[in-house]
Amino acid sequence: MKKINKLIIAVLLLAYSFSHAQQTAKYVFLFIGDGMGDNQILATELYLASLGGENVYEPLSFSKFPVQSFMTTHSADKLITDSAASATAMATGNKTNNGMVSIDPVLKTSFETIAQKAKKNGYKVGILSSVTIDHATPASFYAHQEKRGDYHKIALQLPLSDFDYFAGGGFKDIGLRSDKNSVISKLDQYGYKYITTAKEINNLKKGDTKIVAVSPGTYSGKEFYWEIDKKENHMPLSFLTKKGIELLDNEKGFFMMIEGGKIDWASHANDIASSIHETIAFDDAVKEAIKFYNNNKEETLIIVTADHETGGLGLGNNLIKDLKLGLLQNQKISIQEFDIKLKELKKKKEEITFNEVLDLVKENFGLGDKTKGLELSEVEKKWLLEAFESEFTTLKDVKYNQNYLDILNKNSFVLRVVKVLNNKAGIAWTTKKHTGNRVPVRVIGAGQEKFKAAIDNTDIAKLIMKVMQLSN
Amino acid sequence: MKKINKLIIAVLLLAYSFSHAQQTAKYVFLFIGDGMGDNQILATELYLASLGGENVYEPLSFSKFPVQSFMTTHSADKLITDSAASATAMATGNKTNNGMVSIDPVLKTSFETIAQKAKKNGYKVGILSSVTIDHATPASFYAHQEKRGDYHKIALQLPLSDFDYFAGGGFKDIGLRSDKNSVISKLDQYGYKYITTAKEINNLKKGDTKIVAVSPGTYSGKEFYWEIDKKENHMPLSFLTKKGIELLDNEKGFFMMIEGGKIDWASHANDIASSIHETIAFDDAVKEAIKFYNNNKEETLIIVTADHETGGLGLGNNLIKDLKLGLLQNQKISIQEFDIKLKELKKKKEEITFNEVLDLVKENFGLGDKTKGLELSEVEKKWLLEAFESEFTTLKDVKYNQNYLDILNKNSFVLRVVKVLNNKAGIAWTTKKHTGNRVPVRVIGAGQEKFKAAIDNTDIAKLIMKVMQLSN
Repeated sequence: MKKINKLIIAVLLLAYSFSHAQQTAKYVFLFIGDGMGDNQILATELYLASLGGENVYEPLSFSKFPVQSFMTTHSADKLITDSAASATAMATGNKTNNGMVSIDPVLKTSFETIAQKAKKNGYKVGILSSVTIDHATPASFYAHQEKRGDYHKIALQLPLSDFDYFAGGGFKDIGLRSDKNSVISKLDQYGYKYITTAKEINNLKKGDTKIVAVSPGTYSGKEFYWEIDKKENHMPLSFLTKKGIELLDNEKGFFMMIEGGKIDWASHANDIASSIHETIAFDDAVKEAIKFYNNNKEETLIIVTADHETGGLGLGNNLIKDLKLGLLQNQKISIQEFDIKLKELKKKKEEITFNEVLDLVKENFGLGDKTKGLELSEVEKKWLLEAFESEFTTLKDVKYNQNYLDILNKNSFVLRVVKVLNNKAGIAWTTKKHTGNRVPVRVIGAGQEKFKAAIDNTDIAKLIMKVMQLSN
Repeated sequence: MKKINKLIIAVLLLAYSFSHAQQTAKYVFLFIGDGMGDNQILATELYLASLGGENVYEPLSFSKFPVQSFMTTHSADKLITDSAASATAMATGNKTNNGMVSIDPVLKTSFETIAQKAKKNGYKVGILSSVTIDHATPASFYAHQEKRGDYHKIALQLPLSDFDYFAGGGFKDIGLRSDKNSVISKLDQYGYKYITTAKEINNLKKGDTKIVAVSPGTYSGKEFYWEIDKKENHMPLSFLTKKGIELLDNEKGFFMMIEGGKIDWASHANDIASSIHETIAFDDAVKEAIKFYNNNKEETLIIVTADHETGGLGLGNNLIKDLKLGLLQNQKISIQEFDIKLKELKKKKEEITFNEVLDLVKENFGLGDKTKGLELSEVEKKWLLEAFESEFTTLKDVKYNQNYLDILNKNSFVLRVVKVLNNKAGIAWTTKKHTGNRVPVRVIGAGQEKFKAAIDNTDIAKLIMKVMQLSN
């Protein structure tokens, strides 16, 4: 009896694995949280729980996916990857050097991407990002360039893709509209509609194709405003994902890559509150894919992962006894907007006092407010004063709309402000750069079993090719 | 045709999940790497690769397990757990407060542990640790105490367990042999053999029971020597695990908990090289379980996990461009042994110069050796000098065999030495305490499927109870 049972089980197992190996997906979502390590996710989950007065976890939608794995992210030349090399790995299944966009390290071969293969195989394709659409991660799905910084060259390759839907942020280097080498001219030439107003984007409908939709809620037509700032004209990634599903849904299937690009940016600043708000918005976009999945379970695959971790976030520091992520509710503003606020104040008045600035800090970060458990110690005040003095008494020119990278590149007052708040919340970071930490992979849907166990970022492309049955 | 196919697949799936739900394990290994987050594992894998001249990963045995999940570790009163609360969760399926050993927060209920249930159900039981056997993690499997620090009380509960095999380190507070309240008397009284020599341990054989085997390679009969020090009389965890398998193997099955306790200790010191050597030794013990598994696949389950992460280890810092874990090969000594060395030097001579100490640093850590890429900058030298001066010119009494906790509790010279080496290797830490990071869970064998997806530390006990069919 036992032997027969075993035999039956063996046959069933074989049949089961066979049936699974055959699983294919017609609708594939690849979500990339740039810089989103497991601790960025967990911090968000702890923060969300604190909103409800709980001191545990409020899992993000993708934390409930049945397949929970993680992957290595090293590039061809470095153990610590950049976004270009890791996106190339996920888009093509090949390792390249840091800084390179879907091209091999010796520049001989342009790697065909899964998005390009999908298009060739009759699928519709959408590429979305909350940063500019010529940024390393989205670029690696349609462009081939030696240097990720050659934004204009990358943008000029976008129309050649023939992809159906690009959406999110705009272009870093769009060129002048009148110039025939401008991105706009090139888009025109290839029959792309470049739309930038809420009305035009709202009016997009099923079947519309060759669209480049730039959200009106961006810094000068480039990356999205920060989620934490809740700007009025902001059009979130979830909305553009929903639109994408509406446009791309068709009998032959689609491939969509959706990047939450500013989780990385916030983590470079070691600004956990901004990273959390970006992660929540990213999860909202995933929820749109889940809605679609719920109506097309057998043919839909959703993968949520990251290109690398940024910041070496650790959920514990030497200063506190326990995590207090709820304190981050007091941060009402991104460091970029806070920097703008400070510059405005500086422009209005000949002299700003430290106390005036501290008042702004209290208003926007809660710091200095005893009733919120956010009293500033003398040491902390002194540390802020030091940055205040070097920054606000020597700066003569006041630049508005300060470039975010400029803020990161100096040890600025605003960075110290968020560091003090981070300290009190109980978290800390090991770097302002990327790390070699493994990153989470969370999967649901057709072919999900293939993503079990530890994988490498190149496997993302290889497994998607199998699941979508993409021939070369 | 398609519909029939789908029906067949559905039936097969049902049958498959049913067969899986029925899976039971007769031989269960629970490996707990204390403080072992995913980055402690990955750092070890990068280090091992560097030994072979590779710049990628040399996966540990358990990194190849088919089920790769992770879990949350918060305690009843804190998001950041201690070892007692997390071991209680894994041993009993219940949350308690930090510091408490398998007892509920209001001290009304002693939680029965899976080890105790296993014993009651006819399984043999083994409890192993590389730190003392009365330490929080092993204690939570046999004792019930309000305070983990009550070592003597904990030790006196050990003989009551009736477990078959305790092995590893000894006792923190064994008492005098002549005292009838000493641990030794109590062990005698309950028929336990307390053995401490290599010969006695080597002579243990199949069927021997009621054994407390303390390795001869320990600091004063307490915790193991450090793996990195490669001491001659050291008896590694792998050997004691192998012995355990030999002793406990029987028709009715066994449960073994094996703790790698000093991964945590090294991480508290932010000493990555020592943590890596402890992790390798832990993996060697896992390999012994894998050998047993290979001969008893259908009835064996191996779980490798951690109670929490320690140190907030990040694989990236602000000082370097890429990870260089290979540099850690230059560290030949634990900070505890190095501290002893320095104290000996101090005792021998009236005055020690900074240069003499720097020579010792070069000899034992490679630091200061240009040819190894480990030149010391002026800033680094100054920072070391500062600690040297406060430590070596003021300390009058020289204590031998310095307690490891004493070293951790001051910002000592040796801690600065490892920090400089860590910096150069490219890693950093966010704390010298525990973190709330999720920890890895890696599983192979009968019932493995139950451990898929994200779980909580309480699920370890609950799932083991199911897999072993432990009734209350």
